Amino acid sequence: MTIDIEKIAPPFLKTLEEFRQLVDSADTFLFDCDGVLFLGTQLTENAKVLLDMLRSSGKKVIFVTNNSTKSRRQLKAHFDSLGLDASLEECFGSAYASAVYLSEVLKFPKDKKVYVFGHEGIEEELDEVGIAHIGGSVSTRLYIESPLTVTYFKDPEDREFTPPIDYSQYPPDPSVGAVLCGADNWINWKKITKAVIYLHDPECRLVLTNPDATFPIGGSLFPAAGSMSAPIVYAAKQTPIVIGKPSKTMMDAVIAHHHINPARTIMIGDNLHTDIEFGINSGIRTLLVMGGVTKYEHIYGENPSPVVPTYVINRAGDLAALAKQ
Amino acid sequence: MTIDIEKIAPPFLKTLEEFRQLVDSADTFLFDCDGVLFLGTQLTENAKVLLDMLRSSGKKVIFVTNNSTKSRRQLKAHFDSLGLDASLEECFGSAYASAVYLSEVLKFPKDKKVYVFGHEGIEEELDEVGIAHIGGSVSTRLYIESPLTVTYFKDPEDREFTPPIDYSQYPPDPSVGAVLCGADNWINWKKITKAVIYLHDPECRLVLTNPDATFPIGGSLFPAAGSMSAPIVYAAKQTPIVIGKPSKTMMDAVIAHHHINPARTIMIGDNLHTDIEFGINSGIRTLLVMGGVTKYEHIYGENPSPVVPTYVINRAGDLAALAKQ
Repeated sequence: MTIDIEKIAPPFLKTLEEFRQLVDSADTFLFDCDGVLFLGTQLTENAKVLLDMLRSSGKKVIFVTNNSTKSRRQLKAHFDSLGLDASLEECFGSAYASAVYLSEVLKFPKDKKVYVFGHEGIEEELDEVGIAHIGGSVSTRLYIESPLTVTYFKDPEDREFTPPIDYSQYPPDPSVGAVLCGADNWINWKKITKAVIYLHDPECRLVLTNPDATFPIGGSLFPAAGSMSAPIVYAAKQTPIVIGKPSKTMMDAVIAHHHINPARTIMIGDNLHTDIEFGINSGIRTLLVMGGVTKYEHIYGENPSPVVPTYVINRAGDLAALAKQ
Repeated sequence: MTIDIEKIAPPFLKTLEEFRQLVDSADTFLFDCDGVLFLGTQLTENAKVLLDMLRSSGKKVIFVTNNSTKSRRQLKAHFDSLGLDASLEECFGSAYASAVYLSEVLKFPKDKKVYVFGHEGIEEELDEVGIAHIGGSVSTRLYIESPLTVTYFKDPEDREFTPPIDYSQYPPDPSVGAVLCGADNWINWKKITKAVIYLHDPECRLVLTNPDATFPIGGSLFPAAGSMSAPIVYAAKQTPIVIGKPSKTMMDAVIAHHHINPARTIMIGDNLHTDIEFGINSGIRTLLVMGGVTKYEHIYGENPSPVVPTYVINRAGDLAALAKQ
């Protein structure tokens, strides 16, 4: 049996007319960032021109990233340092998505708190939605009543822990209503154990900011949030709620915050298994960008990926040609 | 439909004659330890009498434990402190089983080394079978040529690591032929990352001492070796070789070392999902002991476990009644 690749392969957009049709068909452009708008610390060609063009024609631009260590404020600072000139509203990371999900979808009880396995960005976003939390960074923030009355206390031992272990120091805590796990570069036995003990309570939910196994730096692959959370998932034996791409949960959070129309939204990314699957799981159109982690043959080769984007383009910045019209 | 429980439920041994038939039918008795011979730090009733009876009638006794942090020497010291009076040959932990498996089954190349994610017990057993290793404990031992020429060097940073992270410090190393993971109370980002980077090499094998998710202490469940190894398994995307119970691999290692006859061997344990499945996977008979993690209703209740032991007994020490004859 031969498969007629033309019948299933997505259109590769090349002409100004194709670009125009695409841009006219959408009001909201969800962007993956690394691999699309920048590679490492370098903006991709015409990325900034494209964003300015979309913004000035009234389109909504949202940067949807699985990065779990940064709050939207920190993402904006990072994007700005690269020259993307982002607004806070344009930034949407998995830390904020997790906070929104807990608050809006799970209706997290006001009398409970979240145990954070992750960085300050997560804590900042939980503060933003008014959810109390423990664990997390060195300075653990404790909410008392409102965002105006915050008591800080230090628990540096959580980060500087080394054995020996005193097993009596890990009591259950029924006031912990959820364990929220992101990438944690300070992963240690004490933090894993606290999370696992809290999750023995069947009322306590396990939420992962994102499922990424690795992320690329300098030609190598380093462990990402999904790997860091794996001990807790394995020990807790509870099916986790996974927030980041490719989970539709991330889209639910975007829609809860931005009230966008999915039919006039396009997800633009370079990764079939996060960005494009995310678009497919969320029921929106997708534009795959070459030059990141996906190669031409993954789409148009003899054994193409079963994950098929709606459209393909060489570089996101190619769409900026419309700005010169 | 009703199920006649008598037809599928295993016999519950209660009489002296049943005890005698069981003991006469086997030459080798594989014992799980915690929950069978002792509970915490207390020997179970008649455990020592039973062991002495078996030993004096020429039976082989082997303590088969998934504990990955202790060498056989350390297990012997632990068992002796509890009063079990074990010989080195009677001790068989997953650290030693892993070393035997690498050496005998995988024929681990002499010019390669193992990256250890775990405690000193693993290093001691690798030394025992003459396999070079890095990582592991604070004082990393480097084999030069033979067990007689060992050079020690200290790399305390591996254990005391805290961020920030320098991504350039994690090069691949083609001399690492395997990553061996056990329980590691010093788990940190640096050690996980080193393991993951080595495993990018498809020639590098991933071996887990045991798959246990948790272990019980004082009414709570703490993360065990399988949970500690989970970040590496998740990030490496390589199917691991799993050594400890219930894997038949553990039995292969026991047989490689002890040359026992499986037809005349019985596994005695309290855990259906480690001990009894281990016996079933290894094709040997099993004796389930009450009083540990398994309850009477798991076997004889209305919804019995699909894991069915060959025999059941109230306490292992009950067999010691034969000694008084």
